Amino acid sequence: MSALGPSLRRRALLLGGAAAVVGGGTAAALAVRDGDPEVRPVAVAPVGAETVPFHGVHQPGIDTLPAQAHAVFLGLDLNPGSGPAEVGRLMRLLSDDAARLMSGRAPLAAEDQELAVLPSRLTVTFGFGAGLFDAIGRAGDCPAVVRELPAFPADRLDPRWSGGDLLLQVCSDDPVPLAYAVRRLVRDARSMTSVRWVQRGFNPARGPEPAAVTPRNLFGQRDGTANPASGSPELAESVWVRDGPSWFVGGSVLVLRRIRMDLDTWDDFGRVGKEMALARRLDTGAPVTGGGEFDEVDPRVVDERGMPMVAASAHVVRAKARTPAERMLRRGYSYDDGPTPDGAPDAGQLFAAYQADAATAFVPVQGRLAESDVMNLWVTHVGSAAFVIPPGCADGEFVGRALLGT
Amino acid sequence: MSALGPSLRRRALLLGGAAAVVGGGTAAALAVRDGDPEVRPVAVAPVGAETVPFHGVHQPGIDTLPAQAHAVFLGLDLNPGSGPAEVGRLMRLLSDDAARLMSGRAPLAAEDQELAVLPSRLTVTFGFGAGLFDAIGRAGDCPAVVRELPAFPADRLDPRWSGGDLLLQVCSDDPVPLAYAVRRLVRDARSMTSVRWVQRGFNPARGPEPAAVTPRNLFGQRDGTANPASGSPELAESVWVRDGPSWFVGGSVLVLRRIRMDLDTWDDFGRVGKEMALARRLDTGAPVTGGGEFDEVDPRVVDERGMPMVAASAHVVRAKARTPAERMLRRGYSYDDGPTPDGAPDAGQLFAAYQADAATAFVPVQGRLAESDVMNLWVTHVGSAAFVIPPGCADGEFVGRALLGT
Repeated sequence: MSALGPSLRRRALLLGGAAAVVGGGTAAALAVRDGDPEVRPVAVAPVGAETVPFHGVHQPGIDTLPAQAHAVFLGLDLNPGSGPAEVGRLMRLLSDDAARLMSGRAPLAAEDQELAVLPSRLTVTFGFGAGLFDAIGRAGDCPAVVRELPAFPADRLDPRWSGGDLLLQVCSDDPVPLAYAVRRLVRDARSMTSVRWVQRGFNPARGPEPAAVTPRNLFGQRDGTANPASGSPELAESVWVRDGPSWFVGGSVLVLRRIRMDLDTWDDFGRVGKEMALARRLDTGAPVTGGGEFDEVDPRVVDERGMPMVAASAHVVRAKARTPAERMLRRGYSYDDGPTPDGAPDAGQLFAAYQADAATAFVPVQGRLAESDVMNLWVTHVGSAAFVIPPGCADGEFVGRALLGT
Repeated sequence: MSALGPSLRRRALLLGGAAAVVGGGTAAALAVRDGDPEVRPVAVAPVGAETVPFHGVHQPGIDTLPAQAHAVFLGLDLNPGSGPAEVGRLMRLLSDDAARLMSGRAPLAAEDQELAVLPSRLTVTFGFGAGLFDAIGRAGDCPAVVRELPAFPADRLDPRWSGGDLLLQVCSDDPVPLAYAVRRLVRDARSMTSVRWVQRGFNPARGPEPAAVTPRNLFGQRDGTANPASGSPELAESVWVRDGPSWFVGGSVLVLRRIRMDLDTWDDFGRVGKEMALARRLDTGAPVTGGGEFDEVDPRVVDERGMPMVAASAHVVRAKARTPAERMLRRGYSYDDGPTPDGAPDAGQLFAAYQADAATAFVPVQGRLAESDVMNLWVTHVGSAAFVIPPGCADGEFVGRALLGT
């Protein structure tokens, strides 16, 4: 650390102590009440000193839940002529940067620590696209589904938001250390790559709502209710690669789709119709057929006239995993790049889904949605990219080393 | 409110109660310690239900301090042919939207409340550019300095980030209600305006650091140390128009400059040199000549060799108000629209300064800085706009009515 280390460390300790005090106080004040599913115990404290470990069996930024408030997704392309040696050097450097930044330290070459010391759960996650496998001479090792997702009927993909050899997903609860981390990572990648695309996303800030509440997307919908819990066996089975080559076990596959939302027409559609389309209530996220947010929609329920309360084309009916292999961890972010000069929205969701095998998860689920989903009235997929997420690395190692063989 | 009103109102009450509990607990845990200027009492709680009143003598979003974590600045142009009647209708509609949104309600025409109920200190501030004065047939009432700021030697202004008939400054601690508010406001302005520019800014999130700490900009510098305190007589004298026509008294003038920062060369400049350029320490913000953050830099101090410790061209020396009339409230935000395809940063500051008279405040201060400021090595002004900020309005009224005479 720098000259200011002791003061900041003391501060972090104090804040940690405060968190404990505060957590106790608010848990008492905000006990769960029957009939009010949104009120849950709250632990609130200055969160700047919180860190997530970089080294481990899995990469960070996946089972880092709830997802941080801010994300930058970067799609980089390797310079022409890059081979395994260049990619190895790049990943060694970026892994070192990521480990330092996530622990609240500036990268090795940086003198000032000020923008690094409060990382606010900063995570850096690396993904390898098909172009990287090609560059290192291992084209055949890239899963077919990562090389090319099937074309779905409703896709309106723009190359501007698609593809990429190397993904960086950088997340933090604070946009300032996030901006710093992205800038330093890109700076170190700059001589070996070009920036294909940048996509910025946000979730509700950490603070306005209790952390245990499912975040709302720009439709106003609680989004992520069906996600497996952090650290659960279900998450492990859905997300982490268990069978496969050693360079892949402990990794995952990320599908990143840029989904434009037509927010003006959504706003003007009646509330009853919206809740029919979602099969869930907008306010609580509970099924329209009754129960609480974490209960499942029961498509067999009928209303007083004997009519089904849930349309066969309702979103959750179509999106729900029908087999364990279809399960994913959805870790999406809202984006807002609008308004356009004529005042129209340019907003939607960066849908980021992690799964052990996209061929058995994202592809069949999205196939069903593209075929029939009431929400297709308001959503359009305008960008698409898929990446192999290598497993995590140990201290002194770097992400992807087993694949790169250097 | 909607059907979910009672539940959410109860929640807001609970959160408010928790804030009181928590505030007491943490203030005890985090008492100020001598010699550690960064540790201050902290009040931490879910902040979503916090609101700022729209109606009042002054518009909100100016003496709303600390500045919220997120801001969107929108420069709108009136449709050709707009007159006082059209502008009056527009301002009546937007003022009503702003009052509702700031109090946690959706605009009148919107059915769903979900994205509005947790405004997180949302504020909407309106400013009138020269083009609006022209449109309403009162060109002569626009202060000359708002019509045209002088050209400064180092300016590299891009029309893409300059000018505008009507300013909307929308701020919140949470990007989700902010995105909702901007979208709804633009939607209601859309038939009468076009969007000239959108500039998004951020400050450190609310939460990672105690609220009383001065935020850091992307140079890593604590920025805003010299600002007058909220509600202070000094702020009132610096910011609010006291002498002038009745439509202007209680208002202010906003100068918004987009200042690009050359962050890579800044990073590589030595720490000693940076602190010399700023005349303040990077870590604490205290003068290099000694003292704490809120002490003034003393340019007369010499080092052990008898050399001045502060260069005559140091930023704070040049930027410091030399008369009361030069004082401003700086309410800036960082922006980050990078990296560019070649990996270069595209980042800096949205410098937003409020003052009673820009001709006696921003203009002479910026004149000095443009003439000589070490920081000119790293900053370039690339956008510029100035607006009359009308006074606030009472319930049932709208912003600008006295000027519009409708």
